[in-house]
Formats: sequence, structure tokens, C-alpha cells
Amino acid sequence: MRPFLPLAAVMLVAAAPAPPKFATPTGIIAESKPAEWNAIAADDLMVIDLKDGKRIVVQLAPLFAPVHVANIRALAKSGYWQGAAIYRVQDNYVAQWGNNDSEKPLPPGVVKKPPAEYHRSLRGLKIVPLGSPDSYAPMVGYTAGWPVAYDPKAGTANLPHCYASVGVGRDLSPDTGIGGELYAAIGHAPRSLDRVIAVVGRVVGGIEHMASLPRGTEALGFYKERTSDVPIANVRLASMLSETERPRFEYLKETSASFARWLRVKKNRRDDFYIRPAGGVDLCNAAVPVRPSK
Amino acid sequence: MRPFLPLAAVMLVAAAPAPPKFATPTGIIAESKPAEWNAIAADDLMVIDLKDGKRIVVQLAPLFAPVHVANIRALAKSGYWQGAAIYRVQDNYVAQWGNNDSEKPLPPGVVKKPPAEYHRSLRGLKIVPLGSPDSYAPMVGYTAGWPVAYDPKAGTANLPHCYASVGVGRDLSPDTGIGGELYAAIGHAPRSLDRVIAVVGRVVGGIEHMASLPRGTEALGFYKERTSDVPIANVRLASMLSETERPRFEYLKETSASFARWLRVKKNRRDDFYIRPAGGVDLCNAAVPVRPSK
Repeated sequence: MRPFLPLAAVMLVAAAPAPPKFATPTGIIAESKPAEWNAIAADDLMVIDLKDGKRIVVQLAPLFAPVHVANIRALAKSGYWQGAAIYRVQDNYVAQWGNNDSEKPLPPGVVKKPPAEYHRSLRGLKIVPLGSPDSYAPMVGYTAGWPVAYDPKAGTANLPHCYASVGVGRDLSPDTGIGGELYAAIGHAPRSLDRVIAVVGRVVGGIEHMASLPRGTEALGFYKERTSDVPIANVRLASMLSETERPRFEYLKETSASFARWLRVKKNRRDDFYIRPAGGVDLCNAAVPVRPSK
Repeated sequence: MRPFLPLAAVMLVAAAPAPPKFATPTGIIAESKPAEWNAIAADDLMVIDLKDGKRIVVQLAPLFAPVHVANIRALAKSGYWQGAAIYRVQDNYVAQWGNNDSEKPLPPGVVKKPPAEYHRSLRGLKIVPLGSPDSYAPMVGYTAGWPVAYDPKAGTANLPHCYASVGVGRDLSPDTGIGGELYAAIGHAPRSLDRVIAVVGRVVGGIEHMASLPRGTEALGFYKERTSDVPIANVRLASMLSETERPRFEYLKETSASFARWLRVKKNRRDDFYIRPAGGVDLCNAAVPVRPSK
């Protein structure tokens, strides 16, 4: 009675006529061509090494939040997050890290009052539409390897808050946050934060190390004792690591044939026990495929 | 720089004119009247006590899956889950528990091939519509304290897979699963499972104890070693506990004035740092408020 693990069932039908084979999202990814993938630049990858040896890799999104991303790069290069920690984990919401209350001096070049990069102009973006309705935005789709919400009438586009999205902690408006305190979404996509906070990227590796942390018991999921904080050993850009040491990731181009096929199957799964194709999918359940590369 | 914790900001504006006060979802719940809440029956609450002392409480949904729920009640009453464990935790997907591969005899009265309670007739349901578009169903809303997806044309309604929803593990179709192996969603709502699997309830207390478990390293998040399994001490219905010991929960009636106000504010948050009301919300981000009661 192991659901989703159809071994027994497969054995049972072995003697019967073979059932029709339906494509799976994983199968389509496996069959995709190398040319359909784009490598992510080493300067766009932030590598967070926890003291316990676990690693989390974040892809930065300069296309959507250039000033915040420039800040984050400068902070990483200066070693700003040495001695930092994950100090807040709120169930079905976010895990948050940084230097918390300590007044650590900022390195030169960091913009202390970044502009409100909560959305950007649609101009210059080529968008592949998702083709399913969205609860939060007039339109949603994909651009340059990112899921995107957009409003053709207003001419704006923004990164949605999906599972593993990374945003910039801030105080009340008009503060925009510097980029020193960051959070990753670890539950159902908190889309009501869209266009309210700067989304600067997404976790592409190791989100489970944040999502499985003990939840904080204080208001908003802050850990009560500093001894509960999860210490960070190092935060670096992949470009700061040697060629042989740096992690590499690539994303499936939204303009590729495999992406189109993958999206079609995500909307209409018929493999295994999927007896009723949904006919649609929501953006955060069909975020762009990203994988480690060599 | 503590985002979402506007203490410093509040102090800064103390001398300035008071900003307009906007209602918060939490504030509306706090101001609601006791008569706007419905107590959940003790027979509808399944109490899962882990060996380490943590407790998870599941509200069962006989309105949507009566045969599966009857099975689950019979299994709980017979002590079927003594010696059971959480044996699968897949990141951004599900935590699953039961007796896994062991061929434990079923108590009398358990239906071995339950009907496919993947959806039910719309007839007899009074639904309050959500009023925001959905990616998976023609319509979504609320009925009898549950979020619900429905299709007026087909005349069907089903419980959606939201964060903390509980479903019945099964093998390939046409197997429907008995109810002995259950899972709870611990990530972004896996709505593509809607109408494919029987949803039998939702975790109303302690979902964080499942969501924060270490992820399994085998395919589909199964734990590799049985020593990694998280042992369950006891699974009982609240009605099996004495009046003084049993946990109690209540939900906010979807027909109440406070529910309507709460939903309006969930769609258009303007409190704190919410600078741009979304104008909509998705069903799983506005699931019915449920709270412990006395």
C-alpha cells in the first residue's frame, strides 16, 4: 500500500497488455537536448555554506532587482555574512537569514536606500504565457528563465513569490531593505507579498535544508534563543570559488520545444495514477526546470 | 533591519501623525464573535501522538469521503497505527505515514475497495464563492468549513490539495487505497492531485511537526533506513479520549460576517508593509480559519 510507488501494480499488469505510455515531466527533462538549456552565470549564483556542512545555492535575478542584486554581490564579496545565521523560520511561510539585529558596518558601494524594485517595466521582456488563470495577476508566464507575473495594461512585470523564492527583508514602507537580511519561501507560495517586497532570486539547490529547520517559537517564527540560530559559515558568489570548486546550474529555456512539452504535461498529467488531467497548472507548480550541470 | 517586525519603524513614526489603521486577518479573527464559529465534532478529529511527544491533529471530512473516513475511524479505534511511523518526507510535497510495507491485518468493518471518493455531487452543498480565478477548477469557494473546488457544469465538488491537506495513499488506478497509508501536503499546494486521490481531511494542529522533518533521501522522499522512520505512539479519535483530555477545535463559518471581512482583507492587505493590495487571493492562501477552542 505504498502510494506513488507503483512497483507492485507494475508487476501485477506485467502479464496484461501494456498500458499506454504517457510522458512525465521528469521523462521530458531527461530527453531534452543540451542546447535547450542555458548555463547560469557564476556571478548570479550565491553559495550559502552552513556551519554544519549543508549548502544552499541561490540564483540572483539582476533582470528584476539590479540594485538589490548589486548590493548582495558587494555584501558577499566583503564577507558581510560571516557570523550570520538563519534566525527566523515560520511554518508555511519563510526562513530568514542575515545579521539580524547586529549593526554590522556596510562595505563601500552598497546602496543604503535602493529603489523599490518590486516590479519592472514589461519593455524588453519576451514572455511565454503560461495559459492558465492566476489568482493574483492579470497574466503569468516565463521570461529569461524566470516565472513572471505581469500586467499588460500597466506595462509592468514582477517575479512572483513561489516556493524557494528569495526576497529582501525590510521594515515598513518606504524602506526597501538593503539586501543584508534575506528570506526564502518554504511553504505555499506567499503571493500576497508580490510587488510589496523585492524578490531577488530563487533557491536552486538545498531549499530542503531551510524548509526542514525547526520552526521558531516566537512571534513571526523568530527563534527565542540565539543558541537556536543556525550558523552560516560563509556566503560567496560562485565566481569567488575556483573553477573546479564552484557549483553550476542551468535552466530549461522557456522558448525550447522541451519546455513547451513539459508545460503541456504539467497541465495534463496522465502518467501513473493521474486519472484526471487538470487542464491547467498554477505558475508556482510549474516554475522553470533548473538542474545542476557540469 | 528585521523585516516584517516593524518595531523600529513604529518608534520612528511615533512623533509623526498616526498612519491610517487597516484591518489585519489576525485582527478580524480576534474581533469575531463566538457564535460565528462552529465546533468540530470529536469523532471528526484524529489525534496522532508521535513517540517524541509531538501531537498532530487532523480534521476528517466525512462530507467528501464518507467511506474512507469510516475506514479511518475503524482503523483508529482498532489500534491499527500502533507501531506505525512517518516513513516518507518529500520536500515541497508530502509527509506520509502508516504501516508502510507491513501486511497488518485489517480490523472488521474496513471496506477494502472503497469507492473513488475523489469528488462528490454539488447537490446539497451551499457554497460561498471565493471570487478569485483558480488555475485548476472552474470555481472555488467554501462549504461547511472547507475550502472547495467545483464545476457547476459537471455538478461536482472536491476538496483541494492545500498545504496541510490529508489524502489517502494508493497504488495505481483503479485502486483507491484503504486509508491505512495517509499523507499531508507540506509544500506548495499539489493541486494536480485534486480529483485523482481521496482527500479525507486537513491537519488543524501540529503540521509543523511534519513539515520540519528531515527529507528522505530515497526516490519520492522515502527514508532509506527504517531507523530514520519517525515512530508514532498512538492514533486515536478525539472521541476516544476523555472529555478533559481531548483536543478541541472550531472553524469560522463561511457564512459569517467576520469570514466575509476576513476574506476581503486577505485579498487586499493594506496593513503594515503591504503597499499594494493584490485584489485577489488563491484558495489555499485563504483556507478557512481553524483554531483551538476550550
